[in-house]
Amino acid sequence: MSQTISINDSQRLQLKPLEIPTKLLLGPGPSNAHPSVLQAMSTTPLGHLDPDFLGVMDEIKSLLRYVWQTENPLTIAVSGTGSAAMEATIANSVEPGDVVLIGVAGYFGNRLVDMAGRYGADVRTITKPWGQVFSLEELRTAVEIHRPAILSLVHAETSTGARQPLEGVGELCREFGTLLLVDTVTSLGGVPIFLDEWGVDLAYSCSQKGLGCSPGASPFTISPRAWEKLQRRSTKVTNWYLDMNLLNKYWGSERVYHHTAPINLYYGLREALRLVAEEGLANCWQRHQKNVEYLWEGLESLGLSMHVEREYRLPTLTTVRIPEGVDGKAIAKQLLTEHKIEVGGGLGELAGKVWRVGLMGFNSRKESVDRLIEALGQVLPK
Amino acid sequence: MSQTISINDSQRLQLKPLEIPTKLLLGPGPSNAHPSVLQAMSTTPLGHLDPDFLGVMDEIKSLLRYVWQTENPLTIAVSGTGSAAMEATIANSVEPGDVVLIGVAGYFGNRLVDMAGRYGADVRTITKPWGQVFSLEELRTAVEIHRPAILSLVHAETSTGARQPLEGVGELCREFGTLLLVDTVTSLGGVPIFLDEWGVDLAYSCSQKGLGCSPGASPFTISPRAWEKLQRRSTKVTNWYLDMNLLNKYWGSERVYHHTAPINLYYGLREALRLVAEEGLANCWQRHQKNVEYLWEGLESLGLSMHVEREYRLPTLTTVRIPEGVDGKAIAKQLLTEHKIEVGGGLGELAGKVWRVGLMGFNSRKESVDRLIEALGQVLPK
Repeated sequence: MSQTISINDSQRLQLKPLEIPTKLLLGPGPSNAHPSVLQAMSTTPLGHLDPDFLGVMDEIKSLLRYVWQTENPLTIAVSGTGSAAMEATIANSVEPGDVVLIGVAGYFGNRLVDMAGRYGADVRTITKPWGQVFSLEELRTAVEIHRPAILSLVHAETSTGARQPLEGVGELCREFGTLLLVDTVTSLGGVPIFLDEWGVDLAYSCSQKGLGCSPGASPFTISPRAWEKLQRRSTKVTNWYLDMNLLNKYWGSERVYHHTAPINLYYGLREALRLVAEEGLANCWQRHQKNVEYLWEGLESLGLSMHVEREYRLPTLTTVRIPEGVDGKAIAKQLLTEHKIEVGGGLGELAGKVWRVGLMGFNSRKESVDRLIEALGQVLPK
Repeated sequence: MSQTISINDSQRLQLKPLEIPTKLLLGPGPSNAHPSVLQAMSTTPLGHLDPDFLGVMDEIKSLLRYVWQTENPLTIAVSGTGSAAMEATIANSVEPGDVVLIGVAGYFGNRLVDMAGRYGADVRTITKPWGQVFSLEELRTAVEIHRPAILSLVHAETSTGARQPLEGVGELCREFGTLLLVDTVTSLGGVPIFLDEWGVDLAYSCSQKGLGCSPGASPFTISPRAWEKLQRRSTKVTNWYLDMNLLNKYWGSERVYHHTAPINLYYGLREALRLVAEEGLANCWQRHQKNVEYLWEGLESLGLSMHVEREYRLPTLTTVRIPEGVDGKAIAKQLLTEHKIEVGGGLGELAGKVWRVGLMGFNSRKESVDRLIEALGQVLPK
């Protein structure tokens, strides 16, 4: 013991136990977790190699395959938030010099550009105004020009509320020997997804939106085609924590220690996925669609309009135009402080122009819409 | 909606809600979280930019400074497990070509070698048999030979139970313009640490050992000296998720969105830190020391002996020699299945030779020791 040094108490805060007011989280995420997810998360931890815990991991793998509609063997939860799962897809697929073509029509397309560049990719982009989507013809033209090793698209742009159609993109990619990497952060659990049918090779998501969990353990999947590319690498993945060669030995049959999993988050994710399986994917998707249409009606009844064309609007996240002369930030603040409802503001091209309203997972309920519309009716200028 | 594709139900497991048997986790981690930490973790989430949540983050920063005894402004929790915090120190300090000298006397020294290599370091090592520690003279000789940009040491080797003394190492590093990077995963909260007094520039830890939280949100700190090196980089950090330039904008005064924090884990970490502050660091360290000495007595009364020389034994993690002719794995399995007590096995050089017994955080209690010694008495061959 180093008894000669005295302890500095200057940062020793004297705090009371946590008291958090309950708020209705209708922003771009996190959403309120399902109460039974929160209960599962408070279960006493197990060891990360305990057979009972390995069973929980296996259940998570199966149920993630179900919600993504894939048979990919390596379908797991990464021990970080959605951004870590995003980085996992890039780190494990990109080798220095690879041409990576990225569709940028919002904040998360730009983030993919940043990440891919860090891993040495020769990044090319196609762009669209924020809130629009790429047609299959536009994608074909870009792939023909750039002949990318990887094409990255955002299925559900959390910054714009637009849904990028993916039908036919997988076939296009196979024609050119290109891997298809897709962001499904704001679609998984709330928007129809058929990864295998669509020929998606790498996808990532988060736990806290459509799945109704709390953030911190994030879905990742890799197809056999992308796995082969990973096996052909001449260099180690420059990210130890997210190296799928190592993670596969933990999540697969070998059960080799890699890191101490966030046990309690996995409990929560298992419960969230169990609830989706109990409800059924089709019902879950329909619930999100029905409630968002009810939201749009309510917003229109207040004289508000949506930023994205109806056909491409997400059922999970709606961008609502801030009316001329209205201070969007002040309204959001009033909703939060007076009504305990969180909505998001715009990012990038849409900063100051839209609010972002999420109806995801447990929060995709008629009551959420009713509370928001009533509160908005009170705080919007007459 | 893509109604033409039918949903594949082959992975749609029909599960019951989670039922996890309570076990006493006396392995190398995770330990059982404090009950009030588990309760805090089941609190309803807030948005990651909600002023109430930003307040929680500020409390975490202060209390982490207290438990580490540092004034480093950027002292935060990384949104991943301890391994992610470890990688954060490497990713933000190592530039390609930097000479990084690593003290290897166990599994985690080796992992630092692997990680630093991935980030382009020119890795040099000094080694010791597992369970031993480096003298200041040995370190001086190695620093004189290698003139490293960074010296990495493991304060508490979780694979061996040895405590590496750090007195004087910071002065040595300053003499040679070397940054000192230290693993405190198994020491924070349980072993005396004085980061600033010792001149440590980068340190990482975990939430689930000495702090008594659940895994998933992991302490990271960087000194002004190491921060300057980061600012002088000519290339981006090749890890977006752990880039401290970006994280500093979220945890600092700018509050720029980076990723969605694992809200509920931060609740738990805040509660765990609150409890340490309430108990007081000196009391907390003394409790760990007192209980481990009681453990050693108990083990010796069963005829068992410790692997590490007493002076360098950790109060948090003890390596116990498996007696000749005893099947260590079988005993550990029996403890887990019949007595609901987890202990760890040996890794690397110590595989098959030791059990690893942790007494950390909430689990550092007399009752834990009594339960283990009684159970061991029953399962060990007479």
